[in-house]
Amino acid sequence: MAEQLVTLNDVAEAAGVSLSTASKALNGTDRISVATREHVRDTALRLGFRHNALARSFARGRSQTIGVLTHRASNPFSRVVLASTATELGAREQAMLLYDARFGEADMDESILQLRARRIDGVIVVGTGTSHATPSITDRFDVPVVYAFTFTEEPADVIVTADDVRIGRTAAARLLATGRRRIAHITATADDEAVQRRMAGASAVLAEAGLEWAADVRYGRWHEGWGEQAAGDLLDEVPDLDAIFCGSDAIARGAERGLRTAGRRVPDDVALIGVDNWEQLMYDQSSQRHLTTVEVGLEQIGRLAARQLLDPEREPGIRFVDPQLVIAQTA
Amino acid sequence: MAEQLVTLNDVAEAAGVSLSTASKALNGTDRISVATREHVRDTALRLGFRHNALARSFARGRSQTIGVLTHRASNPFSRVVLASTATELGAREQAMLLYDARFGEADMDESILQLRARRIDGVIVVGTGTSHATPSITDRFDVPVVYAFTFTEEPADVIVTADDVRIGRTAAARLLATGRRRIAHITATADDEAVQRRMAGASAVLAEAGLEWAADVRYGRWHEGWGEQAAGDLLDEVPDLDAIFCGSDAIARGAERGLRTAGRRVPDDVALIGVDNWEQLMYDQSSQRHLTTVEVGLEQIGRLAARQLLDPEREPGIRFVDPQLVIAQTA
Repeated sequence: MAEQLVTLNDVAEAAGVSLSTASKALNGTDRISVATREHVRDTALRLGFRHNALARSFARGRSQTIGVLTHRASNPFSRVVLASTATELGAREQAMLLYDARFGEADMDESILQLRARRIDGVIVVGTGTSHATPSITDRFDVPVVYAFTFTEEPADVIVTADDVRIGRTAAARLLATGRRRIAHITATADDEAVQRRMAGASAVLAEAGLEWAADVRYGRWHEGWGEQAAGDLLDEVPDLDAIFCGSDAIARGAERGLRTAGRRVPDDVALIGVDNWEQLMYDQSSQRHLTTVEVGLEQIGRLAARQLLDPEREPGIRFVDPQLVIAQTA
Repeated sequence: MAEQLVTLNDVAEAAGVSLSTASKALNGTDRISVATREHVRDTALRLGFRHNALARSFARGRSQTIGVLTHRASNPFSRVVLASTATELGAREQAMLLYDARFGEADMDESILQLRARRIDGVIVVGTGTSHATPSITDRFDVPVVYAFTFTEEPADVIVTADDVRIGRTAAARLLATGRRRIAHITATADDEAVQRRMAGASAVLAEAGLEWAADVRYGRWHEGWGEQAAGDLLDEVPDLDAIFCGSDAIARGAERGLRTAGRRVPDDVALIGVDNWEQLMYDQSSQRHLTTVEVGLEQIGRLAARQLLDPEREPGIRFVDPQLVIAQTA
């Protein structure tokens, strides 16, 4: 069995002071001489004493627990944000109470009551991306609320999220920098705000270079099969196409298969760039990368959201994380 | 601002009973008439009263918080286990305090002291896979410890993990079922226990069909680039190869590129099967799948580990989750 936990009594006894003095020395709640405080603290350190965090948080009325609300923790991107949120919270001694699939649904009221009964110190709402706005629930809580990997339409909310316009700009700039001029775009549905902003960012960079898309933007789904089909269609329409910006890595993987099936070499004939950096997310590979892509910054979103929540100086508004270009073999 | 939380006082007042009676009715700690108990409970329900969980857990000496120790929360596979662990714990009103990268390192002692000071109710150790054994730390805690997605060499430990032998058996059986007979294996390093067990499982199925590997097993890395290189080498040695079992989906993706570069059709000439089901993990695709693979069951591992920890009837030993064959286009 484990050794017994060192109690405050043990510290007081070993330091030769009263329990009350030991408590004052360690909690800094009353006047006490510097010498005594240091003596008690040294003793506590030597014995391996730790405050009973449960008793301490009860006394303070704080649970050192953060409620996390999410639509679906198993969304592959949300999961990255969740893990980095939990890691950052843990590094700051905050526990995470995860309420999955209870956000935006019928039992939302129940979830909020439960979270408040638990006396959580704050709430992080983890979304499933920037495709659509999330309803603001900030005014349902007395504690701070931060939104991660989503956005709301409430200007007073604190939001940490992906910068889709800069993602689009970064992808297009890379294709131009490698000398490509006949560039197409395969992406998901047109009513998706992430689709719109990535496309707008890339279009702006093309326009700045005096270019337009080489073919109409192909709107479809965030799926590999869609990328394969659309790449084939694009080649039929624009046989001398020299690059494709794909709205996601899944689409890019499919597009690559479509290009190869049509006898095109990647990147010699047609360059490809995606978005997500899934080789890193999924394979954990930092060497021998294949797909050139733009990293959204999901881990950073989770980390910054946790820091914002715990920062008493937090201010309302949207904080975008910077996307990163990841150069590999395809562009 | 949010409405005020309903207090026990509010309930007592609305029910017309004393605070003490209301407390007894809701906590079941003393004799009280059934009629009064039901009346108070109905009143509490009507008012939306929830126990102050913090006060309740302090009274019980329980934190409703589970400590989770991991080597590296950003490992793509561990992250899936972590997210499903957090989801299952959250569904049971347990918070998760994540200690990342503090397991097996110099500051392990410090982490254990901190976790114990926090009065956690249990510990889940989330590993990074079944490649190597994890040191047992069960006897460092007075609370239950469960290991997820790893294994220890301590028979008394409670472990929930991947069944690599059955993963290998499932992959080989699928290739045989599709009529393949000249089957090769590309995998990671030979000293990796997951590599050994997947290979052993597949070899046993081949032997049961009177077959051997069509070429020496290719040992390398869990990388896409390795798969591409090894597939080319295999074709040089065995030009009429008709299937490859790849130790992971990353290896399989690279192998597919190597086969196509060598002019082979997949699956017409050479079938491919991987392990991990990353299209589901990463793209969240359940339709239009490409790679045939074996799903390890990571979400189930996290869920079962959380359930084991909270189950007072838990028994020592290893619980393997069942792998699932995921049939797509390549085999």
